[in-house]
Amino acid sequence: MRMVCLDLEGVLVPEVWINFADRSGISALRRTTRDEPDYDLLMRYRLDILDREGLKLPDITAVIDDLGPLDGARAFLDSLRETYQVVILSDTFQEFARPLMRQLGWPTLFCHGLDVDIDGRVAGYRLRMRDHKRAAVAAFRSLNMRTVAAGDSYNDTTMLGEADVGLLFRAPDNVIAEFPQYRAVAAYADLRAEIDAAFERLA
Amino acid sequence: MRMVCLDLEGVLVPEVWINFADRSGISALRRTTRDEPDYDLLMRYRLDILDREGLKLPDITAVIDDLGPLDGARAFLDSLRETYQVVILSDTFQEFARPLMRQLGWPTLFCHGLDVDIDGRVAGYRLRMRDHKRAAVAAFRSLNMRTVAAGDSYNDTTMLGEADVGLLFRAPDNVIAEFPQYRAVAAYADLRAEIDAAFERLA
Repeated sequence: MRMVCLDLEGVLVPEVWINFADRSGISALRRTTRDEPDYDLLMRYRLDILDREGLKLPDITAVIDDLGPLDGARAFLDSLRETYQVVILSDTFQEFARPLMRQLGWPTLFCHGLDVDIDGRVAGYRLRMRDHKRAAVAAFRSLNMRTVAAGDSYNDTTMLGEADVGLLFRAPDNVIAEFPQYRAVAAYADLRAEIDAAFERLA
Repeated sequence: MRMVCLDLEGVLVPEVWINFADRSGISALRRTTRDEPDYDLLMRYRLDILDREGLKLPDITAVIDDLGPLDGARAFLDSLRETYQVVILSDTFQEFARPLMRQLGWPTLFCHGLDVDIDGRVAGYRLRMRDHKRAAVAAFRSLNMRTVAAGDSYNDTTMLGEADVGLLFRAPDNVIAEFPQYRAVAAYADLRAEIDAAFERLA
């Protein structure tokens, strides 16, 4: 059994917070972990802004729905799912991801969750577990699957290291330079070719 | 994160070997684990018959493609995937399951594999691991997911026991009688209601 684990943002869909900031016109939401390394502080900052702006979950998912997947992502994923098992491993929240999952044909997604009040207010968030991408790949390997993983950023590198083969897709130059052990590609056709070649080597 | 694990044959699609026997007119293929409890002997017997009849993988999958999912299965599964993560846990072989997975919208499937010669002859089979359904549910639980599992027969009961909540769907009377701890239903609407109720209780 051959399992492909894919990161979501930057690989199949745009970066959600940055694009949400642009589309909603709330530039304060452009803040990322580069500006605020403490993820908990960053998320509380983001949720406070949503609250202050009166944005509830349906307002937010409507904007995310408009983002849509990246060009070519759906065709790449559809074709991949015909040949391999595919699970998306993301540090996003399932409530934000849902409109994008619908547009991607409901692939299986492991991520985190929000606490949403009955009136749609986003009250908080729950990280399912630390380093859950790496843990998921380890679980698939323990189930005797061959694993190939692809992602674009630092929070993917433990997953890439755990997989039989790790690949970088559209990663920034600093990530490519820091992790030369992972082949780096930028087009879906090249990513597919690398995945196919990896499983050939693993067979 | 809420994960639903579903058996395949008898739950979403017909029993493959029995229906294949009927459609191909090879009644010897109706033999099941009830007639031959040794699974390895049964599979070698089946593969010998396929060989003797000159049936190669494309011949077999063409028949399986015609079987299609059970009435209502696709709609049930589509709706389920909009609310929960879903993984199908089956003791079938991925090469046989592929046409049915296509008709079900390519849900994620954990199962076993065949050894297929370059000319399409089915030379052998590889069980990925013993009791893999139970192991998969245990893996999902270790990833901090809530799990509800549904199946119809003996080889599902360890998975039902491992899940937070186990359900029987269209199970034979003897299985229902032997495992009274699992609620038993026979309609997709009832299965969905039990899954929803189970996650409500687990929340």
